[in-house]
Amino acid sequence: MTDRQTEFDDLAARLRRLEDDRDIRQLIASYGPAVDAGDPDAAAGLWATDGIYDVDGWRMEGRADIRAMVSSEAHQNLVAKGCCHFLGPCVVTVTGDEAVAVCESLVVVRDGDGYRVWRATAHHFALRRVDDQWQITTRTSRVLNGNPDAHTLLTKGLAGSL
Amino acid sequence: MTDRQTEFDDLAARLRRLEDDRDIRQLIASYGPAVDAGDPDAAAGLWATDGIYDVDGWRMEGRADIRAMVSSEAHQNLVAKGCCHFLGPCVVTVTGDEAVAVCESLVVVRDGDGYRVWRATAHHFALRRVDDQWQITTRTSRVLNGNPDAHTLLTKGLAGSL
Amino acid sequence: MTDRQTEFDDLAARLRRLEDDRDIRQLIASYGPAVDAGDPDAAAGLWATDGIYDVDGWRMEGRADIRAMVSSEAHQNLVAKGCCHFLGPCVVTVTGDEAVAVCESLVVVRDGDGYRVWRATAHHFALRRVDDQWQITTRTSRVLNGNPDAHTLLTKGLAGSL
Repeated sequence: MTDRQTEFDDLAARLRRLEDDRDIRQLIASYGPAVDAGDPDAAAGLWATDGIYDVDGWRMEGRADIRAMVSSEAHQNLVAKGCCHFLGPCVVTVTGDEAVAVCESLVVVRDGDGYRVWRATAHHFALRRVDDQWQITTRTSRVLNGNPDAHTLLTKGLAGSL
Repeated sequence: MTDRQTEFDDLAARLRRLEDDRDIRQLIASYGPAVDAGDPDAAAGLWATDGIYDVDGWRMEGRADIRAMVSSEAHQNLVAKGCCHFLGPCVVTVTGDEAVAVCESLVVVRDGDGYRVWRATAHHFALRRVDDQWQITTRTSRVLNGNPDAHTLLTKGLAGSL
Repeated sequence: MTDRQTEFDDLAARLRRLEDDRDIRQLIASYGPAVDAGDPDAAAGLWATDGIYDVDGWRMEGRADIRAMVSSEAHQNLVAKGCCHFLGPCVVTVTGDEAVAVCESLVVVRDGDGYRVWRATAHHFALRRVDDQWQITTRTSRVLNGNPDAHTLLTKGLAGSL
């Protein structure tokens, strides 16, 4: 019976790991729709209460800062014009209640009859399970313009390191 | 033994949920390859027999309408020129035999030596399990050009509501 | 007890299938970050030691060839300028220790203040489990410029065939 219990527990742990993986992917996939809808609360709720969003040197700390960014005239003008923050599939590394994820994104903005690609960016996410819910503790984003910091983010993300 | 059975059934239900999630993602990820290959049957088969595709006011009803859209001269010309319907990762909410998914997409079209971004669009999918197979019952798509309907689709999708 | 064991084994097999699916998605999602960081080893390690990358008639054989492509002046110049190899969500078909995956990609390159879309491509991956690790045995890529070979890749990929 002990072997049976061990087998069962192993299965349960692997299942939990897959759920974590799915939950983290869904969390990150929610960012684009949230900011393209111009919804400050939906975007801010993806971060831990004291979470950080460091984007090319602009450092937002806590949900109020994220909310303010989405509510800003600059962002709401983008939404009114038509924009799409398009994040790709992530590589996710889960270690207990912590995780690292990495992906790239394109941001396109309405321009005449079509859209122009405004930015292509590397993203590194540090995440934590808080009250059984995954949240972003630190998101670091650097534009892919030759900046070696962007390459470092990608390499660290693939290695699953912070 | 009863507890053991309950534990087992709980695991089986969670596993089923993960499979649903994967199957829905695969279904939606099949759309781009199907229409970019210009394959009317592959595209139409993603919908329920009476499924709806409402794209910026153009309402297709049933698989014959989807098939006709992919077979149309307008679409086949796009395929011959070179196009890519690029749908991003979805946020999926499963409730029994029903599900809601939301994602964004870019459509690029060959133009000279490269491609131009023709459209950026918000997509809301209502899905149903039919004969153990997930199918699209209604897909609603609105271009991200400032149209508030596109934002509403994203917000409803994130909330998992129809 | 036999029924119970059968039920358990069935659950374990389905779980393994989901893990395979996740592992293959992560493998393919690693490609863009690896080459955009300009990291030859990270990219080459996604292939089997004798893996093939056939991209529009250019046939690389073995990890040394992949490594050489990423290390090349042409590729490193792209990285220094700013590029993003953006692969979308895959459709994955696992059959024991073999698998097929299909997806599309955009490659954007820094151009002035923004980016231009250089390529849109269809990708077909044949994969094998080697020492409990999924690896690419053959990746075939064709630009979506009306070339019927690109459409064939997409159709074969959706069908899960080689």
